[in-house]
Order: sequence, then structure tokens, then C-alpha cells
Amino acid sequence: MVVNVAIVGVGLVGSEFIRQVLTTQSKKIAIISVANSRNFLTSSTPLTASWNDDLSSAGPATKPFSLESFTASLATSKATYSTVVLDCTSNESVAAYYPTWLEAGFHVVTPNKKAFSGDLNLYKKIKQLSNGQKGSPLVYHESTVGAGLPVINTLNDLINTGDKIVKIEGIFSGTLSYIFNNFSTLGASAKPVKFSEVVSVAKELGYTEPDPRDDLNGMDVARKVIILGRVAGLDLTQETVQVENIVPEELRNASPQDFMAKLPEFDQHFENLNQEAVQNGQVLRYVGLVDPVHGKSSVTLARYPASHPFASLKGSDNIIAFTTERFPSPLIIQGSGAGAAVTAFGIYSDILKIAERTQ
Amino acid sequence: MVVNVAIVGVGLVGSEFIRQVLTTQSKKIAIISVANSRNFLTSSTPLTASWNDDLSSAGPATKPFSLESFTASLATSKATYSTVVLDCTSNESVAAYYPTWLEAGFHVVTPNKKAFSGDLNLYKKIKQLSNGQKGSPLVYHESTVGAGLPVINTLNDLINTGDKIVKIEGIFSGTLSYIFNNFSTLGASAKPVKFSEVVSVAKELGYTEPDPRDDLNGMDVARKVIILGRVAGLDLTQETVQVENIVPEELRNASPQDFMAKLPEFDQHFENLNQEAVQNGQVLRYVGLVDPVHGKSSVTLARYPASHPFASLKGSDNIIAFTTERFPSPLIIQGSGAGAAVTAFGIYSDILKIAERTQ
Repeated sequence: MVVNVAIVGVGLVGSEFIRQVLTTQSKKIAIISVANSRNFLTSSTPLTASWNDDLSSAGPATKPFSLESFTASLATSKATYSTVVLDCTSNESVAAYYPTWLEAGFHVVTPNKKAFSGDLNLYKKIKQLSNGQKGSPLVYHESTVGAGLPVINTLNDLINTGDKIVKIEGIFSGTLSYIFNNFSTLGASAKPVKFSEVVSVAKELGYTEPDPRDDLNGMDVARKVIILGRVAGLDLTQETVQVENIVPEELRNASPQDFMAKLPEFDQHFENLNQEAVQNGQVLRYVGLVDPVHGKSSVTLARYPASHPFASLKGSDNIIAFTTERFPSPLIIQGSGAGAAVTAFGIYSDILKIAERTQ
Repeated sequence: MVVNVAIVGVGLVGSEFIRQVLTTQSKKIAIISVANSRNFLTSSTPLTASWNDDLSSAGPATKPFSLESFTASLATSKATYSTVVLDCTSNESVAAYYPTWLEAGFHVVTPNKKAFSGDLNLYKKIKQLSNGQKGSPLVYHESTVGAGLPVINTLNDLINTGDKIVKIEGIFSGTLSYIFNNFSTLGASAKPVKFSEVVSVAKELGYTEPDPRDDLNGMDVARKVIILGRVAGLDLTQETVQVENIVPEELRNASPQDFMAKLPEFDQHFENLNQEAVQNGQVLRYVGLVDPVHGKSSVTLARYPASHPFASLKGSDNIIAFTTERFPSPLIIQGSGAGAAVTAFGIYSDILKIAERTQ
């Protein structure tokens, strides 16, 4: 009924998760450990709202963080209840540590994409250690794609019940959703805007990475395509997903300042693409595609007609369409796919599922 | 790991569920009993593809069906594994038997709406018996709303993690989705059709009940509103949900033949409603609403602008939008919400979740 939770990474998402658990006074979750990159604190009693002060270097129980010492401190926590390690970093070396945790009998929950979209051997090791056999530890990562939207769990349900995936297509980046929802529009709401201006506004609103090229190069979307493809049973890697990098070639090696300064020189290029679409009653959307039938998974700037659900997307929402044997008219999920509140919601749901499964 | 499944009702949905389980050679599900309204068959070994012949009255192990004798035959099945009773009827007296099964330690999975939208005391009894305490039996009913679309599980996740529901709004009837998606359209695809003709085509395609008034009166949608409201914590009943019955008053007591014959006399009435909407850039959609904030839950013929996701719905798809504190831009799920394949998918997923929780 109760699970212990030990959290690595207490930034925006980790802190929000703790806030949600404490606010809802969950009787199923006891947060027993928190760690940032410098320190950690493991307690034999559940942490309270003062966890941040307790974790500060002045806290009497605070210790310097290393993956080994943090893990060692959790050893006794499994005596009464299952223990979940929650990785709220985006760190690759923390992801590489999942097999160690799983072998030690800890469950893993995370919004960190690295373990599921990086080295295929690491992914397979994790799958093998959490293979669903009686007593094997559990791994949940709903929030790696579309934050708390029920994407991974729905895909798992489809796969586990024997449905055949025809394709998975979606807008998986809140940033690129915002940019193209505002840049490429049809009908009454259509007003001409410059691509560079939309990127600039998105940057000011904090929607983009500090360097917007880290969004526009498609690598983040590619990671999500890889994750979905692997859950669907494909051995996707960065090498096998074709990515259309929409950063103009001339600006790929520019300094971040030069990139923003020179992007307006390419407004006409993007406007031409948009006009080609609009004149055909279509809009531009930056989409990820998992295509097991043709063996082609990709990230591309594609066109959709006004009547398509991708065309009417708003704000920075994500959308994902599963076309399957049972759902020839696709099963579609959409909504906010970024931000601490909805990411923490996905984590919280995952941990409750582990609590339910480890009664 | 393994659960036994005993099925009451082997019509389209029940048979399709058996087919899916046998086709996927599930190692987690053993179908040990099947029952129709006349006979049942309980076996100590999993049933095979010949289950239908075995169940025929000529089968040597076949017995006359009653809820009591069927239940008694399952008593020894719990010795090794958990047993799920799967109700694939739409029968009220089967629904009223759930407390007996739960008290006997059986789990219940069903697409039957009756227990969750009928007598509130029955619902509360079922909730109390499956209260999530250690060892209590489990009840899953994903397929009662939107067939296999992940509606109930998503709502439960939102509630269980402490999100606040602002409203739940959706098109929950494949029939009424089809009728209004075809009758009320905007833009290039808009072509004038008569309401009575759309209803007539829907009837011929088998989308409606034998008497289409059983769809148009809104009672089926009201049942789904009640289910969603109750999952969200509201004590909704048929009395507290306001339902807009769109069957013209003059036709409510007509014979089924007279209803279809006289419906064209009301085409102008529906066309006027549609024109009022279209002239404002809107379409008509028949929607269910759970509104805990204003305490008003309802089923109404409402209008939505072209840019709204409800306006671009196609075919007979369902759609549901959860507006919550964490999802002010709603979490939306859409896709096929009727038919044996997707209903059986929802059931199959539910039973796998029970298998996972009862290792």
C-alpha cells in the first residue's frame, strides 16, 4: 500500500512532485530521501514541508551526494515497504545507474528521457531487469513523452493486449507546437507573422531552450520518437530516425547571439514554406513519426489540412495519434505536454501504480 | 501473474474478448468459465477456441444458468489464482449481483453501465467493497465510457493525485457523434443534408438502437455523464442530470414506424437550429457535461466554433475533454468509442491491470 520514494534532483519538477504529495496528504507515498547535485538527506521518517531546509548543507543529517552513498543510504528502506527511486534530473550518468538500482530491488520512475532514448544496450538491460516476472522491480516513465498525458501507459495497453501499431504520429515538443501553431494558421485567426518574431517571442516567454536551436534541430523530438518506437518494440536509435533539422545550415555554427540576430534573414524561406502549405489549405506542423510498417521513423516539418486535429492545436499543447489495427480512426490524446505541474502529475500517477502493484 | 476469468454474456463483446485473449496467447489470463442467458460452463482448465461448442446445450459439462449456480461453480477457482468475473451483459440484475461477487472475493470487470449509472446505493456499496484497502477486490470499468479509450483510468489518475476537476465535457455517443458530424458542418466539407436523412442512414448502418429515439432521447449519454461524475466524486443520478431530449415532443409516443415516417416533418426545426449555429461560424454537437464547480451536469445540444476540437470530430468517434486545475487547456482524448474490438480492448487492459496488481 505504501511506497517509499527517494528523489534524485529537486529542481522545478522534483519540488513540484513533493508539493503535490504533501498537499494531497497521500497515505500511499512516503518521501524518505531527497538529493541535489551536492547533497542528499535520507530519513527514517517521511520528509515534511521543511525538506528543503533540512537538505541544505547546514542540515545535521545532510551528506555529500554521490550515487553510491545515496544508494547505500536507502538499503534499509526496503525492509518494510517497496522503495522507488525517482530520477528528476535529465542526467545521463544518473540514467546509467538504473540497472544498479533495479538489481538492488528498487523500482524506478522518471521523466528523464536519457535511459529510454540513448544507448540501446542500456535500454535493453533495463527492460530485462524489469521484465514483469513475479517480484521483478518496476520501471514507469510516463512523463518522458507528453509530460502527464497518458501516452506511454496507453501505448503499453495497446501493445500488451496484442493490438498492431500502424503508426504513431504527433507533436511532442511544446516549443515547436507553440512556434508553428502561431506561425502557420488558416482561416479567421490567420495573421501574417515572421518566423523569427515567433521564435523570439517563444524565447522571451521561456518556452524555448536558452539556445532555440536546441529545439529547432529536432533532437528533443527525435528522443521522444525513439522512446515511443522502443515501447512499440522497435530498436530505434539516433542513427535510425531521420531528423529534419530546420535550423538554416548557415546558422548552425553561429554563436547564440548571431543566431537570433541573423534568423530574420531566413524569414522569407519559412514564409515560402508556409505559403505553399496555406495555398493548399494546409498548415505546417513539426511532427514525430513512428512507422513500423514501412520501417521509417522520422522527425519532419509536415503539412496538415485544416480539418486535421494537428491543425487546430493551440498554445503549446502536445498531441499524439495512435493508428492501430483496432483504431483505424486513430486514438488521439492532446493537452499540455510541458511544465512542472503536469510532469509531476505523470510521476505521481506512476508511483501510485507501483504502490498498487506492490501491496 | 495469472488471473482466472469467468465471463457472463458471450455476445459480440464477450466473444471478441475471448478471441483477443486466445489470439494473443496471453499467459496472464485463463478463461475458466463462460455463461449465456441459458447455460454456463466452468472448467478446471482454460477454455480453448472450441468454447462455443462446449457451451452449447449438448456439451457434457454444460449446466443451466443462474447467477447462484454460476457463482457456486467458481468457488474453487480462487485457490491458486485470483478470479475476475467479467460481465459482458447490459443487464441490471447481473449488475446488482456485483456486491455478492465482491464479498466472495471475486474481482469485477465490465463494460455494463448499469451498476455505475443506476441506483446510487448499489454504486456506493460497490465502491465500499472495492475500497483499495489491502486485499480488497478490484473493480475496473474502463469500457463503460468511450469503450477502450483511456477515459476512466485517466480520470482516476487525475483524482487520485489530487487534481481539481473544473469540468468534463464530451461527445460520448458514437451514434450522436455520427449524426451531428454529418448534419452540422462548416467550410469546404459542408453540404446541406436533412436531419431525418442522416438519422435514416445511421439506422441503416446499424449505428443507432433499433429505435433511434433510444439514442436521441439522451439517456445513454446521461448514463455516461453519471458515471464520470461519480468517478469524480459527485453523487449524480438520473434526477440530477438535466437532459435535453431532442426527439420532437409530438413523436415521443409514436410507434417506431411512425417515428421514422414523421421525422421529416421536423427537418425544418433542426435546419433552423443548424443555420443559427452555422451563421455564427459554429456547429451543433450533442454533448455531455460534468460541472462540479456550478453543480450542473447536463446533456445538451450545444454549439462549438470551427476551431474547437469537437467541431472537427469525424465519423462516429467519441471525444472527451478534462479541464482541471493542472490542465486549464484541457486534456483531450478522442477516437473510436464503440464496437466490439475497442470495447474488448478496454476490458482486456483492465484485466491485465488486475493481473499485475494481484501477483
